[in-house]
Amino acid sequence: MKIAGRHYRSVWPIGEDAFGIIDQTRLPHEFVTLTLRSEHDAAHAIRAMQTRGAPLIGAVAAYGLALALRDDPSDENFTYTHDMLAETRPTAINLRWALKRVADVVRNQPRDKRASLAWKEAAAIADEDAAMCESIGRHGLAIIRELAVQKKRRLNILTHCNAGWLATVDWGTALAPIYMAHDEGIPLHVWVDETRPRNQGAALTAFELGGHGVAHTIIADNAGGHYMQAGEVDMCIVGTDRVTANGDVANKIGTYLKALAARDNGVPFYVALPSSTIDWSLKSGSDIPIEERSADEVLKMTGRTPNGTLATIEIAAPGSPAANPGFDVTPARLVTGFITERGTCVATEEGLRSLFPAQNN
Amino acid sequence: MKIAGRHYRSVWPIGEDAFGIIDQTRLPHEFVTLTLRSEHDAAHAIRAMQTRGAPLIGAVAAYGLALALRDDPSDENFTYTHDMLAETRPTAINLRWALKRVADVVRNQPRDKRASLAWKEAAAIADEDAAMCESIGRHGLAIIRELAVQKKRRLNILTHCNAGWLATVDWGTALAPIYMAHDEGIPLHVWVDETRPRNQGAALTAFELGGHGVAHTIIADNAGGHYMQAGEVDMCIVGTDRVTANGDVANKIGTYLKALAARDNGVPFYVALPSSTIDWSLKSGSDIPIEERSADEVLKMTGRTPNGTLATIEIAAPGSPAANPGFDVTPARLVTGFITERGTCVATEEGLRSLFPAQNN
Repeated sequence: MKIAGRHYRSVWPIGEDAFGIIDQTRLPHEFVTLTLRSEHDAAHAIRAMQTRGAPLIGAVAAYGLALALRDDPSDENFTYTHDMLAETRPTAINLRWALKRVADVVRNQPRDKRASLAWKEAAAIADEDAAMCESIGRHGLAIIRELAVQKKRRLNILTHCNAGWLATVDWGTALAPIYMAHDEGIPLHVWVDETRPRNQGAALTAFELGGHGVAHTIIADNAGGHYMQAGEVDMCIVGTDRVTANGDVANKIGTYLKALAARDNGVPFYVALPSSTIDWSLKSGSDIPIEERSADEVLKMTGRTPNGTLATIEIAAPGSPAANPGFDVTPARLVTGFITERGTCVATEEGLRSLFPAQNN
Repeated sequence: MKIAGRHYRSVWPIGEDAFGIIDQTRLPHEFVTLTLRSEHDAAHAIRAMQTRGAPLIGAVAAYGLALALRDDPSDENFTYTHDMLAETRPTAINLRWALKRVADVVRNQPRDKRASLAWKEAAAIADEDAAMCESIGRHGLAIIRELAVQKKRRLNILTHCNAGWLATVDWGTALAPIYMAHDEGIPLHVWVDETRPRNQGAALTAFELGGHGVAHTIIADNAGGHYMQAGEVDMCIVGTDRVTANGDVANKIGTYLKALAARDNGVPFYVALPSSTIDWSLKSGSDIPIEERSADEVLKMTGRTPNGTLATIEIAAPGSPAANPGFDVTPARLVTGFITERGTCVATEEGLRSLFPAQNN
């Protein structure tokens, strides 16, 4: 997608010794790119959320693992680095999926070929993610198109967190159908949940939509239910960090509350995902580990001061503690449907298997 | 209640020419009191939310109206000032209730007595509010006590926004039972919803609870549903700005989402209120006007910089608009019960009339 007229992906190779990312902790205030030269750079970027979004961190981890093999292609180093990168974020499954793809490619290969094979696989993961997101966009577009025909007026779509191109390699998951509908001339407007505590909605989704010229309004996470009651939300689309075999959905904290409000008001609630986000090994959402993040993300806030510099301020009562679960689980019963690269399905094990029959448990 | 060992109310008379409030826009960063000398001071303090909370702004408006009569006790000035103050916040009904009490007292009275009568009525409103909140506390305490006997462990209570003593004249509505339970030695812990966009939870409720020594944890508004799913919320208690005859509840934006999650997880959801918050003239919540506040409350944030000064920063994508509805309506069907100064009741018209039979429509 484009920033100021120039096409970017959210991760790109730099020769075969490094790769680039956009520092998403500086957005929307500053546009800064980072060059990552080692597996440690990659792990830090994922942990500090300089790069984030379930599909994207899979690709970043794969590049990081490939860089580790350049210095030391031994089995020991591979296993150590694989596990270190897998632990950087516990909830997103794409991270483990991408690392396993690299592992499958280098297994039983001579050491002097491993780095190069891993690098190619990382690039393939990135290319495939972009292609999957484009497919997700096309399948989601069909749903939006149908809704536009029904409603005969500008559509209002609510999204939570950032599941746009910044969260993937390109296009996005939840936002891909929105970009395509906008490009096709379907009149629409997006309610952008701020998404506390890290404000990925106000910072990243609003930045993306503004950059692409899509009409949007930032709202506090608290406000979405009210707009649904008022008939001002026609559809919700969100991304996900992990979907279990029964269709339960782990996504950014607060997603569950919006799904409850959507159900209470008859608003369709869609989850957009590449199949790499499905964890066939887990039966239901209660098995998903929920990442607990730093209290500072709740107690402090970073932004632009009037003179244009960035500042971090403390916003809560001094001495009060905070807790910060990063994700919640939306039960499959609240999800209208999944939008995947192979098409859409209902949020059940049967629905998922109708699209992906070859998967093992 | 106490701040640093000294007893405060949230509004107090200063002679008969002025009255004092705590500037709640400076909390929790600075403790500053303001002296209000005119109806214009009072209106500004309410609009700018230097003073806030449905019960408290009723008392503040009553004092403001009394001050206006000191300068000009004419019917014309009374009506003008009454209407001007009534418009400062459209959703809270206590404001109109308190102004009507002053109107009833000065009606048909000689002009030279009006200011003094109005001043006494304002003081009576404040005293009665404190007494009502103490009663609410006692009735809510009975519910908490019973829950503590059932659970046989530390209770976790979730609250949204600030319905503590800073939102009333003293004690609070939702927090009064919590203070009394804590004082009685019932082990409890409060989940404090941050309450974007103005952060009354992180700023005011946490400040109050910390000052009183009640264990608490600030969480993003997004997190409450997750803690309910995890069995870590035993009960919700919130305040309200207006309850309609059928038991629908207008309260701070986001309350509805928590009520949905409470229902989905079998968590009791209580609303604490003085009877002055009931609007018998409205049949249901869809009739309540919802205040739309400034987009700046969503797009900017104020807090403490590392060197101790206060700063306001911009936190969202530059150029993106925001919308800011201040309240939402929780349907009566999601409310377990009301806690009032006369006792508790179910959230129906029959329930409310069982406690307040003398009210007209």
